Amino acid sequence: MNNNKIKVGITHGDTNGIGYEVILKMLEDTRLADLCTVVVYGSAKAASFYRKAMELPQVNLNKVDSASEARDGAFNIVNVVGEDLKIEPGQESEAAGAAAFAALEAAVTDLREGAIDVLVTAPIDKHSIQSPGFNFPGHTEYLEASLTNAETPEQDSKALMILCNEHMRVALATVHTPVSKVPEALTKELIVDRLTRLDRSLRRDFGVQNPRIAVLSLNPHAGEKGLIGSEENDIIAPALEQARDSRILAFGPYPSDGFFGSGNFKTFDGILAMYHDQGLTPFKALSMDSGVNFTAGLPFVRTSPDHGTGYDIAGKGLASPASLREAVYAAIDIYRNRQNYDEAYRRPLRRQHPEKEKKAPETRAETPKEEDK
Amino acid sequence: MNNNKIKVGITHGDTNGIGYEVILKMLEDTRLADLCTVVVYGSAKAASFYRKAMELPQVNLNKVDSASEARDGAFNIVNVVGEDLKIEPGQESEAAGAAAFAALEAAVTDLREGAIDVLVTAPIDKHSIQSPGFNFPGHTEYLEASLTNAETPEQDSKALMILCNEHMRVALATVHTPVSKVPEALTKELIVDRLTRLDRSLRRDFGVQNPRIAVLSLNPHAGEKGLIGSEENDIIAPALEQARDSRILAFGPYPSDGFFGSGNFKTFDGILAMYHDQGLTPFKALSMDSGVNFTAGLPFVRTSPDHGTGYDIAGKGLASPASLREAVYAAIDIYRNRQNYDEAYRRPLRRQHPEKEKKAPETRAETPKEEDK
Repeated sequence: MNNNKIKVGITHGDTNGIGYEVILKMLEDTRLADLCTVVVYGSAKAASFYRKAMELPQVNLNKVDSASEARDGAFNIVNVVGEDLKIEPGQESEAAGAAAFAALEAAVTDLREGAIDVLVTAPIDKHSIQSPGFNFPGHTEYLEASLTNAETPEQDSKALMILCNEHMRVALATVHTPVSKVPEALTKELIVDRLTRLDRSLRRDFGVQNPRIAVLSLNPHAGEKGLIGSEENDIIAPALEQARDSRILAFGPYPSDGFFGSGNFKTFDGILAMYHDQGLTPFKALSMDSGVNFTAGLPFVRTSPDHGTGYDIAGKGLASPASLREAVYAAIDIYRNRQNYDEAYRRPLRRQHPEKEKKAPETRAETPKEEDK
Repeated sequence: MNNNKIKVGITHGDTNGIGYEVILKMLEDTRLADLCTVVVYGSAKAASFYRKAMELPQVNLNKVDSASEARDGAFNIVNVVGEDLKIEPGQESEAAGAAAFAALEAAVTDLREGAIDVLVTAPIDKHSIQSPGFNFPGHTEYLEASLTNAETPEQDSKALMILCNEHMRVALATVHTPVSKVPEALTKELIVDRLTRLDRSLRRDFGVQNPRIAVLSLNPHAGEKGLIGSEENDIIAPALEQARDSRILAFGPYPSDGFFGSGNFKTFDGILAMYHDQGLTPFKALSMDSGVNFTAGLPFVRTSPDHGTGYDIAGKGLASPASLREAVYAAIDIYRNRQNYDEAYRRPLRRQHPEKEKKAPETRAETPKEEDK
């Protein structure tokens, strides 16, 4: 680890949403500069507009031409859009979408070049950002496409969204799939694949040595022994078995109502939900306003707050910076965990420090799998 | 309303489950006797067994031969099983199932004869209770079949399960349906039917004058304008329209993750979820241990705690009586609300007390619909 602070790139997102509000509110607490160097990809003018419009306190933003010039342990801003950008809080506009894309493009370039260490993205509007340069359903797919070409040591760059809060980490087997298509989309291979990715991320990104993963059932009462649906017996249970053969500690399938009602979810390191609302509904219900979205499987660390552009409250001073702040903390933690993990598993030979065996679990004999490196 | 206290019948449920534990723990607080007269349908011997086994404080249970002899404002017990009943905490057994059924049968007879006013049921085991007399998936179906033959003023006795806690009341469009069958089970007629029942129960059982009901979407992001499933456009939206034509204040469809994540659920009197886990997962996650299951649409008031027999913790002293206590409170409240509602709407002529108009909203000109009576 070098001595400089971790450089956190933050894209401003849609400039008509609550991006600037949550960024500025977060930066009001200058203690963040003790933890990291911040580089906002955005517009000093837009920041100033929102600060004045909502009467937020002054925040010192150090204007720099590029992230490489960022002052260590300070809040820096790189202008990525022209002075003529029109700010219309709460309005979907092409200009705001283009501004969001410009920030993302600049940040991704800097990530690849090592000018920033991690990326935190403020929310974009999925319609207005569409352009010849951005033809993706969202951030995740764009990053997947942009970053997998990068010359990085990662061999596997398929993304897996993991939602994290103080209670749990949730991944989804299917994401934006209509409920009618979920049963056919669920295959044993898919579930094993998601479990493998989740397990890997829990080890490397979250520093969990032997992660325990709970798998939710598809049907009510986990199918009640086949009376209410057969997917538990036919697909999920065999997938769990196969995952366990690969030494993944996967348990379940658990009916989601009892799992979240009993507090059982607190005893696992990760949860795999079968479909979008099954994972996200209890996650958000229990998150309060501090949920974080982490994109596992990318060669770089990227997190985001779990809220959207918030057009309905944009410019009104009502947005909470809690989720963005947690996203920054999470990005820093994950970056460090990855460094520690990679450091621990870098040496091809087993270390010979039996006296340290207990204190330094990374000296275990177990060899990481190929794809962990 | 008569001057005697409301008579609450409580069935002991499966005698190898946590039924006695939660009943005895609830009755430790003798203030409950200020609110109601309790009649436990069970076994004094079983109660004594569990009290001693778990070293619970002494509870005065007045043994009576039938509910009609119950002492007003006291805790009474009617023996419904023989002295030879074997108690085996945590074991599924035919004897425990038969004991559960005996209590239920006695209580239902007393309900029909007016010897008790409301029924609160401790949990049964759905397998061991099966017998020639009980061939139903659960309490609800048994009560529906037993009580609809009763000579009561109710014309409509189809049951609708409503889950209640301090934050919300949730009903389900489909209940024990496999996820793969949910989309085809959802029809406009079904949703309008559920909305009509829920609306009626909110008015009569919960005393809400103009209930606002939120309807959840089936698909993620409420189908994202048809991109992720068409049921929102094709079925749910038209159902909402038709319900509104019948003056039901139905709103939505709302994506369930945002609905529960934003706290929006707190602004509605009732919620209609499209399937089991969608409603029950956030409900239980946010209930802590005080959720109540109310069976709307029956001619009598019946509630139950939202937990099961708890075989895994039976006899260990770990069960909380909170949900049962809330179930008793809810039954009393609903009984009173029904009395008030029926009283208010009994007279065919509009009352002439314009000076009371504001304080007594039941004097509104609006005539209740036929099925409300």
